Amino acid sequence: MTEFDQGVAVAARPDDEAVFDARLGEGWQIGAGVNGGLLLAVMGNALRTRFADDGHPDPVAVSAYYLSASRPGPAVLRTEVLRRGRSMGTGQVSLVQEQDGRPVERVRALATYGDLGGLPDDVRTTATPPDMPPPEQCISKDLAPPDFMERASFLNRLDLRLDPACVGWAVGDPSGRGLLQGWLRMADGREPDPLLMLLAADALPPVTFDLGMLGWTPTLELSVHVRANPAPGWLAVTHRTRNYAGGLLEEDAEVWDSTGRLVAQSRQLARAPR
Amino acid sequence: MTEFDQGVAVAARPDDEAVFDARLGEGWQIGAGVNGGLLLAVMGNALRTRFADDGHPDPVAVSAYYLSASRPGPAVLRTEVLRRGRSMGTGQVSLVQEQDGRPVERVRALATYGDLGGLPDDVRTTATPPDMPPPEQCISKDLAPPDFMERASFLNRLDLRLDPACVGWAVGDPSGRGLLQGWLRMADGREPDPLLMLLAADALPPVTFDLGMLGWTPTLELSVHVRANPAPGWLAVTHRTRNYAGGLLEEDAEVWDSTGRLVAQSRQLARAPR
Repeated sequence: MTEFDQGVAVAARPDDEAVFDARLGEGWQIGAGVNGGLLLAVMGNALRTRFADDGHPDPVAVSAYYLSASRPGPAVLRTEVLRRGRSMGTGQVSLVQEQDGRPVERVRALATYGDLGGLPDDVRTTATPPDMPPPEQCISKDLAPPDFMERASFLNRLDLRLDPACVGWAVGDPSGRGLLQGWLRMADGREPDPLLMLLAADALPPVTFDLGMLGWTPTLELSVHVRANPAPGWLAVTHRTRNYAGGLLEEDAEVWDSTGRLVAQSRQLARAPR
Repeated sequence: MTEFDQGVAVAARPDDEAVFDARLGEGWQIGAGVNGGLLLAVMGNALRTRFADDGHPDPVAVSAYYLSASRPGPAVLRTEVLRRGRSMGTGQVSLVQEQDGRPVERVRALATYGDLGGLPDDVRTTATPPDMPPPEQCISKDLAPPDFMERASFLNRLDLRLDPACVGWAVGDPSGRGLLQGWLRMADGREPDPLLMLLAADALPPVTFDLGMLGWTPTLELSVHVRANPAPGWLAVTHRTRNYAGGLLEEDAEVWDSTGRLVAQSRQLARAPR
């Protein structure tokens, strides 16, 4: 089993098909918490089992509100089916952890599931893939300072190569454009699929690095649209912000597959580093 | 009371502060349904009362999943507080209508509330306001065909002036850029506030008109970020799409106030017209 599939594994309770148990791995940490994209993928994995029998196995739209910081360890996922439709289904999922002896909700999400493989094949996308050097000419995370890597264990699960034009912040010279981009694949070779898009949309460093702010940017809300089954191979990922104001910013991500198709788009509202 | 304030009015039940009654007005219809932005504003109005006493009266992020088409008439709003924080609170709200004698959920939303007036005043927005002629040189809805207006009563609540460069579709010559923009204010002079942003984000015709598809584009998911208290006066609103594929499209909206500040951003996933 791959690291990602282990990371998102859930077990339905025998007495209640709506409730799942999971264990958030220590290998997915960022700072003291668990990577928000991995949390979304765990939640997405639980909810997808509720729609798989309807022929709607793929997350198409997922919107998550982050309530408190998740920690490595056991987690319970409570799901609710809101609507079973002909072409899509919509549900809700909540991730809860025990803290000081009582259940504390970490994330709540709404999501719509469908069959990406069954969508019509008309594509009239005007967006264009990111312009950046090939992966072998990009900056590997192996160049990151060891104390940063220690606090971001989830980066060890990834093979992440950042566009050299977007890493000026690492040497005190951020571009100020509000753009980060790079190549992404899983370190153990696990190929992308719709569920992995939920991780890919929140896997790069925060775009605020490119504005010269190297602190932590907690996510308030993250919505991901998965628009196609990604092809095997490298993913090209961009993060942009255009509206940094009032201590908050939006971060828009695009995920492009190896055939040059825009397979996922996401937007989050995050708190700027203090 | 203004038309908008009447349209979003809710009454808490004396025996349960979490449940509200509302009436969806016939003046807010689009086709057989009720405008999705107005629904979001009704839901946002119910949920805000749960956070007003915390000093968090403003919707900051709202994500709604549309489950079935709402009809004019009575509606019940069920709210749930998920988290009360120091600077923000997060909750859930569901809009339900009776249909054939049983309750049917129309929309479910998650939302975070805060105090937009209390945010720090640093603004480093790189996005730029739309480039279009002043309202008096734009195209009023009064030029729309009467049979279209009949099916879109909610347009009578608005003073909407579309950029002439974006209305080629009205004469069979859409630009194909995937861009619609115009000026918006309420017909009765009601000034904008954060709640009105939830309507403004979904008030223009669908951006697919500019791709030559004049049909209905039902919203699957709509997320709105309200980023500042809008100043009085005209709002400039843009709708863009860059990824039309597989029968679905994203529609990104920006709302700019009369001082040139980007006060709201939204993204929706919609079904393309058949």
